[in-house]
Amino acid sequence: MKRIYMDYQAGSPVDPRVIEAMIPCFGTVFGNPSSTHAFGQEAKNAVDDARAKVASLIGAERKEDVVFTSGGTESNNLALTGTAERRREKGKTIVTSAIEHISILNICKHLSRLGFDVKHVPVDSYGMIDPAAVEKTISNDTILVSIMYANGEIGTIEPIAEISKIAHTHGAVFHVDAVAAVGKAPINVERENIDLLSLSSNDIYGPKGVGALYVKQGTQLRPIILGGGQERGLRSGTENAPGIVGMGKAAEITAQEMKDESTKLAQIRDRLRKGILDNIPHSHLNGHPTARLPSNLSVRFSYVEGESLVLSLDMEGIAVSSGSACSSKTLEPSHVLRAIGLRHEEAHGSLLFSLGRWNTSDEVDQVLGLLPEIVRRLRRMSPLTPKELQV
Amino acid sequence: MKRIYMDYQAGSPVDPRVIEAMIPCFGTVFGNPSSTHAFGQEAKNAVDDARAKVASLIGAERKEDVVFTSGGTESNNLALTGTAERRREKGKTIVTSAIEHISILNICKHLSRLGFDVKHVPVDSYGMIDPAAVEKTISNDTILVSIMYANGEIGTIEPIAEISKIAHTHGAVFHVDAVAAVGKAPINVERENIDLLSLSSNDIYGPKGVGALYVKQGTQLRPIILGGGQERGLRSGTENAPGIVGMGKAAEITAQEMKDESTKLAQIRDRLRKGILDNIPHSHLNGHPTARLPSNLSVRFSYVEGESLVLSLDMEGIAVSSGSACSSKTLEPSHVLRAIGLRHEEAHGSLLFSLGRWNTSDEVDQVLGLLPEIVRRLRRMSPLTPKELQV
Repeated sequence: MKRIYMDYQAGSPVDPRVIEAMIPCFGTVFGNPSSTHAFGQEAKNAVDDARAKVASLIGAERKEDVVFTSGGTESNNLALTGTAERRREKGKTIVTSAIEHISILNICKHLSRLGFDVKHVPVDSYGMIDPAAVEKTISNDTILVSIMYANGEIGTIEPIAEISKIAHTHGAVFHVDAVAAVGKAPINVERENIDLLSLSSNDIYGPKGVGALYVKQGTQLRPIILGGGQERGLRSGTENAPGIVGMGKAAEITAQEMKDESTKLAQIRDRLRKGILDNIPHSHLNGHPTARLPSNLSVRFSYVEGESLVLSLDMEGIAVSSGSACSSKTLEPSHVLRAIGLRHEEAHGSLLFSLGRWNTSDEVDQVLGLLPEIVRRLRRMSPLTPKELQV
Repeated sequence: MKRIYMDYQAGSPVDPRVIEAMIPCFGTVFGNPSSTHAFGQEAKNAVDDARAKVASLIGAERKEDVVFTSGGTESNNLALTGTAERRREKGKTIVTSAIEHISILNICKHLSRLGFDVKHVPVDSYGMIDPAAVEKTISNDTILVSIMYANGEIGTIEPIAEISKIAHTHGAVFHVDAVAAVGKAPINVERENIDLLSLSSNDIYGPKGVGALYVKQGTQLRPIILGGGQERGLRSGTENAPGIVGMGKAAEITAQEMKDESTKLAQIRDRLRKGILDNIPHSHLNGHPTARLPSNLSVRFSYVEGESLVLSLDMEGIAVSSGSACSSKTLEPSHVLRAIGLRHEEAHGSLLFSLGRWNTSDEVDQVLGLLPEIVRRLRRMSPLTPKELQV
């Protein structure tokens, strides 16, 4: 049985072209970029080349503004804690949304304990943030606004450029968590006037354990990992040159192929969406109908547990998610699904298909061939299912 | 010209057996260990298997006590900041040494600014810490003692078990930075009663961008990277499964081969040491003559700049270091060489050969064939060189 993977949001295979670019680095580009000898300088050049490729993917004019980290979560920590601690004399309010990634939520909780005042802008039933709501929440005491580019759980893409204007009008630093969006939405830090932008390598089919934070020239941060002063003093620790080279190659491929890939992803995603919503009664789309990531399909099914669906599909060799993998060890329903107004049982009945580079129309058809019967079977087992659906 | 690399302390190639173990992971073990489906569970199993191998290398009884991080620097940050913030109600004094890695120095500087009282125990002219000096410095207000297992710049191995006893008698948590020592000294966290131990993967020929912190059961830390609560809540961020698998394989190989490898390294290191000290006048060993890492040779040459030696050797295709690569971008002499009592010019005249798995006796002979003439030439160019050495 060929297995089907539709949980790219939780983790992706590395593109074979990226692996090919990385492998020689393990054995040859092993110098320390801080060393003055040839081995060190070769590593430094490889890292700088990757930096330029990542900068180019996000439309950054200066490659120096890209700081490599160990991943999206670390980038978010550096952006938020780094800004809060650096700007605490200027104010103590931080504005964010109710549907940010769990790392942003937990960092904000920590900052609250340190005395910062964190305000969560609500979202509408599509998970969309209304810029007017940001305008109403922000004040001149606001030092930082942190909003995600797009939500990985429900796919909704936020009005980043408009929120950026509001943040800057009030003198706040504007951070964007683009981990879920990178490679799927045309991010441009210059056009959208973004000060800080978090990226992860694995979300563009690069290696895990690598990420980046774009730090616009002049934006000041306190580092969270101290040491030898690498990455302009913002992130100490010997540079992971092979991993960084991998992220650079992944960024280069993504920049070239994103447009076509997004079109293809949206096509097969829409086929899956139509197949589910047309053929399974009491199934509903989560997130915005049009302003959404091409790779994302979040659907909820009445009278079914998402986790039971995940297990039933897993037995058929199909990997999907019932929510954010990052928090799936807790039994709490996703804070994102709660924030868009879903009731407890609606949130628990949700399934996330996150498609990626290697999914095919055939795979979609296989899922569509199995899912309706699985839902029927699970509904038959539930005492809550109305009689007319007990078929 | 075949190049010669003798700067393993700054960075190492990844062992081909490790690369072989990692490559399939990039394409297959790409699930998120937090996911409940098969892909996720495969990643979880791979990470757990690696955890057991790393635990075994350092003699830890419980594999759960190994927390994966992005490298040695992050491990040091988590250990020190994490302990200080968690135990601040119990006291405010931190005891460390004058020859720790730059990451420990800079974290301690930061903790001083936060109100902690950091005391630096001095070392003797070999870089050895006298346990009696620790006993004199420690007090019942001491919450943390952080001492390196061995110094990477001068090779000296510290009396860890004795210092451990003193730390625990005073109720302090005992942290050991073992980044330079791992794979070269028989670390055993149970026997030496270590609470926290920092490791890096690349120092045992594993991939860069991965490290670990051993956290003895019951030792409490505040995490520095917040998010999805991975690694028992101590280190959030999706696990870098391929990198962790690589570190596990590297630990397994190291555990099997360390004894023979150390014997071999000490032999060729001693050949290099004898060849230099016997044939180059006014050359002196830095660090302890016997209690030292088998891979390390630090030598100082009067009337010569270490950086000029590095450049001259680099032109011959030989990579060595004039000090810690982590701080080589500053022109300050190494704090380690200053702490063992070297004068400014003696410190600047030092050269570090750090040998590794692939160095050979032949390479040592090639270096010995070139170095005396290079030193002579540089001495002829220096106005400070006494007449009798101007040959």
